[in-house]
Amino acid sequence: MGDTESIARAAKLAFEASQLLPASERANALRAITRELQANKAQILEANRKDMEEAQKEVAAGRLSASLVSRLDLGRGDKWNAMLQGVSDVSDLEDPTGRITYAKELDDGLELYRMTCPIGVLLVIFEARPEVVVNIATLAIKSGNAAILKGGKESKNTAALLSAVIQRALASTSLPETYIQAVHTREDVSSLLSLDQYIDLVIPRGSNALVRNIQNNTRIPVMGHADGLCNVFVDESAKLDTAVRVVLDSKINYPAACNAAETLLLHESVLPTLWPSIANSLLDANVKLLCDTPSLSVLQQTPPQKFESHVRPSKADDYSTEHLSLTLSVLTVPSLSDAIKHINSHSSHHTDAIVTESEPHASMFIRGVDSAGAFWNASTRFADGFRYGFGTEVGISTGRIHARGPVGLEGLVSYKYVLRSKSDTGHIVDEFGSGEGKKRFKHTEIKADSLPF
Amino acid sequence: MGDTESIARAAKLAFEASQLLPASERANALRAITRELQANKAQILEANRKDMEEAQKEVAAGRLSASLVSRLDLGRGDKWNAMLQGVSDVSDLEDPTGRITYAKELDDGLELYRMTCPIGVLLVIFEARPEVVVNIATLAIKSGNAAILKGGKESKNTAALLSAVIQRALASTSLPETYIQAVHTREDVSSLLSLDQYIDLVIPRGSNALVRNIQNNTRIPVMGHADGLCNVFVDESAKLDTAVRVVLDSKINYPAACNAAETLLLHESVLPTLWPSIANSLLDANVKLLCDTPSLSVLQQTPPQKFESHVRPSKADDYSTEHLSLTLSVLTVPSLSDAIKHINSHSSHHTDAIVTESEPHASMFIRGVDSAGAFWNASTRFADGFRYGFGTEVGISTGRIHARGPVGLEGLVSYKYVLRSKSDTGHIVDEFGSGEGKKRFKHTEIKADSLPF
Repeated sequence: MGDTESIARAAKLAFEASQLLPASERANALRAITRELQANKAQILEANRKDMEEAQKEVAAGRLSASLVSRLDLGRGDKWNAMLQGVSDVSDLEDPTGRITYAKELDDGLELYRMTCPIGVLLVIFEARPEVVVNIATLAIKSGNAAILKGGKESKNTAALLSAVIQRALASTSLPETYIQAVHTREDVSSLLSLDQYIDLVIPRGSNALVRNIQNNTRIPVMGHADGLCNVFVDESAKLDTAVRVVLDSKINYPAACNAAETLLLHESVLPTLWPSIANSLLDANVKLLCDTPSLSVLQQTPPQKFESHVRPSKADDYSTEHLSLTLSVLTVPSLSDAIKHINSHSSHHTDAIVTESEPHASMFIRGVDSAGAFWNASTRFADGFRYGFGTEVGISTGRIHARGPVGLEGLVSYKYVLRSKSDTGHIVDEFGSGEGKKRFKHTEIKADSLPF
Repeated sequence: MGDTESIARAAKLAFEASQLLPASERANALRAITRELQANKAQILEANRKDMEEAQKEVAAGRLSASLVSRLDLGRGDKWNAMLQGVSDVSDLEDPTGRITYAKELDDGLELYRMTCPIGVLLVIFEARPEVVVNIATLAIKSGNAAILKGGKESKNTAALLSAVIQRALASTSLPETYIQAVHTREDVSSLLSLDQYIDLVIPRGSNALVRNIQNNTRIPVMGHADGLCNVFVDESAKLDTAVRVVLDSKINYPAACNAAETLLLHESVLPTLWPSIANSLLDANVKLLCDTPSLSVLQQTPPQKFESHVRPSKADDYSTEHLSLTLSVLTVPSLSDAIKHINSHSSHHTDAIVTESEPHASMFIRGVDSAGAFWNASTRFADGFRYGFGTEVGISTGRIHARGPVGLEGLVSYKYVLRSKSDTGHIVDEFGSGEGKKRFKHTEIKADSLPF
């Protein structure tokens, strides 16, 4: 505890000190990080090889999946350059802080400004992908937040060296080097979760279980990035082409992603018309189908290729399961409103799509579905910060407080109210009121993009 | 638990059903509530008299403060009419939902809209002031959220009848009557706090201890409305007039409010110049001063009136105490940057003010002070939703996630992303990429105030 408490306190002090520096210092820091990373490339890749060797032993012993090793590999393909490009892309984005989002003159010479500002100290917990250390550090610095990072344990050597390199880069600027720190064990995270006097937001990226476990163990606000259980609903007026394209893309474009579809909902009227062709396309793409009785019966009438190997009756919990693979649960519903009810009670409120030619049905679906994304004739896979035009993505928030859905830099800022009196003797509340001789508030709008002083 | 679970589930279903109704139904509901309240005025005031009688017995027995009884009294002065006026004032505000806050064309015929929408189900816990039942119900309905209300136990008869009357009013509209529900015991609140599948946000209004206790016992996000420990810093270049006016108003205008000042910070250079006059004005207004050694010594040199009765040496914890009365802690600091450090480590990050004639000092204070409000030559008492021009106030959030400082209706909404393809065959992600023959995202801005369908 002693150690993590000093880490957390140092982060808070670093954040507070950084508030007095111009934003240009944060841009300098990002340039310094790029330089230091380049200068230390060989050692970093060496540390990464050590992580990979240890992970490969775990894979051989059957304790780890092979896909993890591939995500761990910082030397593979263009990953190193992409990581550096990410730093410069984020550098080029507009500063999310210091923007005025509300400004009113309350009285002659009494000006109120709501100005975006950093949140404070972030604790970010993420998977064993070492480039995420650099990615998150960059986002934190760009948005003016101090951060404490904890990556997956399999990446510990790489993560430790990357954060040391980042600290060295910070030491060459006027930002405190404790602006970005790393911890390496679960115990560190546990004790940090109790330090709400220093840490302002926890951002866990991972499973629902991870996010819930953290929510259960802290008073600090949590912005969870958890599972996606996305649905596509094929409405009665859907066109075959659109349905096939949207359902397929949602399922097969990247099945392991949180914005991939897990359940296909079929309006009962499309069972005899569209469903056999949709099913054929899915089976052609090697998708396994877990079907309810009505959708199964239709396929049984004229069994498509791969019916024997790829089609099974569904169980109730298939509709609450994030398959993350080429498996799709299929459910027939008697109406649009039943589709909405099913989604609201079974989806993870991430992203759900309707395929329909009816504008009133699309409108009802979009208003009725209580999810971060409600899509009309478009693949659920569009739910992504880059595709939305944010330039970068912190993750996809499955909460609905503060930031919802894909989170860009805007999701890492809060705001403060600045009140300035230009009167010779200042402004006091006692002068205002409804009685005689009292002043009334004016609340006239001020046009301002940044604070005028 | 059985009971509270059905209350929470009913609230979620009511919320989901309400999403399919036009906003005009919510306006109807507010009118119906006003009518039902008027029609049941006599019974409500009778229930209120019962609460008051019971509370008076507790006061007589020394178990309750007399001020609580006065806040409990719904028949006093203009309170009843003010309560009804509040409903109609909120009705008249702009609908905070359905607004477009970001809109881009991602590709020809692929339109993304970020639309404000309600959060879902709110659990609101507040003090024993019965009119708050009506106030919160009105805010929830206006913003499209379902709500479960728990008022202070001393108001239980009035609160129960008010919520029954509100439910009767809802029953006359197409909104479900379970849209607004009330619970009456701490045990109910405890079991509701575990139901994060139904409840989306907890809003506790009360002490820091209440807010922390709730944060310790739930996975649900908490928007706390807790104590205010506000500071006023008199800088070296402060003018006497401004300093006296701002310090006095901050302290005496309404000492029991969370935006009243609790600590006065003095730049050491103003000790011999401004401090004796400021102290005199405070003592004239009957304020007790808890002084550090330097500020005390100055007063001892020429003891002002009331020095004996009203001035005491301070203890360390006076600077972390919310007096909520005519008591002010006084601390001398050697510099602006020490004032900022003291505030960041001792204030409750609510509202802090600087009195100065120096623009660079004001700028540094405003950027360096990590509080919801940073004021220049203006009383801390301006920190208030009505004064800021929000028309109404949910409370003053002491958190910095989602909403910070005075919270208007905007603080009760979230948003969702709506994606609409106008293409004949829908839009899929597979068509986009950096390779040959792939489409690039356009991200051109769309001008829209509301969803076009």
